[in-house]
Amino acid sequence: MKSGMSYPKYLQQLEHAISRFPGVGRRSAERMVKHLLTWKDEYIEELGTLVLGLRENISYCAHCYYIIDAEKHLCGYCEDVQRDRTLLCIVEDYIDVPAIESTGKYHGLYYVLGGALSPLKGISPKELHFETLFERVNKEEFREIIIATNPTMEGESTAMYIKNQLEHYPAIISRIAKGMPMGGDINYADEITLGSALDRRQAL
Amino acid sequence: MKSGMSYPKYLQQLEHAISRFPGVGRRSAERMVKHLLTWKDEYIEELGTLVLGLRENISYCAHCYYIIDAEKHLCGYCEDVQRDRTLLCIVEDYIDVPAIESTGKYHGLYYVLGGALSPLKGISPKELHFETLFERVNKEEFREIIIATNPTMEGESTAMYIKNQLEHYPAIISRIAKGMPMGGDINYADEITLGSALDRRQAL
Repeated sequence: MKSGMSYPKYLQQLEHAISRFPGVGRRSAERMVKHLLTWKDEYIEELGTLVLGLRENISYCAHCYYIIDAEKHLCGYCEDVQRDRTLLCIVEDYIDVPAIESTGKYHGLYYVLGGALSPLKGISPKELHFETLFERVNKEEFREIIIATNPTMEGESTAMYIKNQLEHYPAIISRIAKGMPMGGDINYADEITLGSALDRRQAL
Repeated sequence: MKSGMSYPKYLQQLEHAISRFPGVGRRSAERMVKHLLTWKDEYIEELGTLVLGLRENISYCAHCYYIIDAEKHLCGYCEDVQRDRTLLCIVEDYIDVPAIESTGKYHGLYYVLGGALSPLKGISPKELHFETLFERVNKEEFREIIIATNPTMEGESTAMYIKNQLEHYPAIISRIAKGMPMGGDINYADEITLGSALDRRQAL
C-alpha cells in the first residue's frame, strides 16, 4: 500500500483479509471493499455473520464426506433411496458434486476424497479419505466405480492409485473422458486433450 | 442451484451473500466458499469480524470526503502541511485517490464527489458533494483545479458540470488527458481514445 499514510487502517486490514482468496489481488480487494461500503447494513451483517459461523454450521456426510449442514448426519445423496446404489462416483472435492449433478447424466452415489495425491504439496494417501473408501467398496456391491478426479497430473495419479488398489475388485472401474471442451479451440488445445479427442472420435 | 436438495443451506446462503459483489457469479462464489473452508479459524474470524465492523469503523474526511478511520476527523492529505494547498484534484470515488497517489505526480489536495452525475441512475448534483466543493473553492485560493473524474459518459458530464459552475473562477480548470493506455492496442482502441491520442501527439 503506497499511500499507507492516508489509506484507512481498517480498510487495509479488510482488503488484506479479502485478498487471501485465490485470484483476488490488491485491486480486486479494493474494489470489493468499495462495493461493500454501498451495501445495505443488513447485507453487510448477513455476510459477516455467515462467514463467522461457517465452521460450526457445516459438517461432512458420515458416509461419503460430501459437505452438509451441521445438524445433519448424511447427505441428501446417501439418504435418497431413489439413487442407484450400484454406482459410485469418486471426486476430489465436494464442489465437484453439484457440477456432475448439473449434467443430469448421473444418478448414483458419490464419494469425496478431499483432494488429490500430490507429493509436491505433501498430500499422501493418508491425507485423503481412502481408508473409508476401500472399506465401503468392500462392503457394498457396486457394478461400476467412476473415477471423476480432475484431468490434471495430480488427479491422474490419484485415479491410477485408486485403480491399482481396486485391481481385483469385481466391478467396472471407469474414468471420465478427456476430449475437446465445448466451445474450445483445436488450435489452442494441448496435445493430450486433442490426442484423446482423436482417439475417442465417434462416427457421425 | 440445481442440486438444492443436497447442497448445504448454509453454503447456499453464504454463496448468495458473496455473489452480491460485482463480477462474482455463482461459480466464483462457490470457489471462494470452498477456499474459505480451508482457512485457519483465526483468518475466518478476522474476515467476518472486519466485515461486521465496517460501517462503524469507517468515516469520511470533513474537508474532502476521503475515507478515513472512524476515530479521525480529517484525512492525511488534508492534514499534511507539506502538500500543495493551491492544487485541488476532484475525483469520483475515494478509491481513485490511492491510484493517483501511486503515480507520484501529484502533491496537492483532493476532493471526493462520491460518484458521477447520471440521469439514468438518478444521480443529480444533489446526490454528490458539490455544495461543500463550491463553498470550499470560493474560500480557498487554488491556482489549479484538476478534474479527474473517469473518462466515461458520466465522468465527462460531471467534468462539464464542474467546469460550467466554475466558469468565472480565477484558476486553471484542467481535465486529465485521454490517450492510449500503456500496453494498449491501437487496433482495439475506440475512436475517441485514439482521436485524443492523435490530437495530443508529442514530438519525439
